[in-house]
Amino acid sequence: MADILHRIGVARSSPQRVYEALTTVDGLSGWWTEKTSGVTELGGVLEFRFAAGGFDMKVVELVPGRRVRWEVVDGPPEWVGTGVRWDLRQDGDFTIVVFAHEGWREPVEFMYHCSTKWAVFLLSLKRLLETGEGAPEPRDVRISDWH
Amino acid sequence: MADILHRIGVARSSPQRVYEALTTVDGLSGWWTEKTSGVTELGGVLEFRFAAGGFDMKVVELVPGRRVRWEVVDGPPEWVGTGVRWDLRQDGDFTIVVFAHEGWREPVEFMYHCSTKWAVFLLSLKRLLETGEGAPEPRDVRISDWH
Repeated sequence: MADILHRIGVARSSPQRVYEALTTVDGLSGWWTEKTSGVTELGGVLEFRFAAGGFDMKVVELVPGRRVRWEVVDGPPEWVGTGVRWDLRQDGDFTIVVFAHEGWREPVEFMYHCSTKWAVFLLSLKRLLETGEGAPEPRDVRISDWH
Repeated sequence: MADILHRIGVARSSPQRVYEALTTVDGLSGWWTEKTSGVTELGGVLEFRFAAGGFDMKVVELVPGRRVRWEVVDGPPEWVGTGVRWDLRQDGDFTIVVFAHEGWREPVEFMYHCSTKWAVFLLSLKRLLETGEGAPEPRDVRISDWH
């Protein structure tokens, strides 16, 4: 098993505001992909769509202002069965976001790509909260031939 | 053991040009830290310095235009003994950079931070090669309280 791990700090925000950006369609479509839909409650399925396909995530844990967990129930075969975990806390002036995309069966090259692309989207989340404007798909930063 | 993995594609470049940015003091100081010095040949030690400290890397493999490997011989205790691997190839219009920072003993929170920060510096490498101007420390993108 292999995991993608990231950590960012959001200035002038709060765990509650970051939590909202992770648990509402409006928030999610402001930093990840504009084509976000689905059910945001526990047990619901969120649908994230991109030019090249998409992911369906089941919401498996919600602790307001502290933790969000999703399980990938549809999407690229390498993603199905993996989990995404978000842990939030306030440290001084920064809301700290500790992120993991866990349980990849093999560290295939697609995982290397997704690791870098997650970093780009986490910076988009940070920018959304700090400035009011993120860079979700289709306005995301292109990193390679794999987009 | 845990690994940080990333992949970017550099447009309008070549494996040889990317290799030079990874194996010369001038290249390295153009995307990672302006305070780069040391011996770039096989068996030499490169010294990378930042406001918050730095890393000494022994050059353990050099395959021109294809591969570079470093071993961390001094720096934060979590880094010492880990390895950094760069694999390069041309795929159509992009020079593909496959990066790994391997052999972390534990996935400590500092590793989460370094994973995101490596992505930021890889984007700086990409920008240096595509535009002639990277964003090395001290002009790097700040991602959190840990810089």
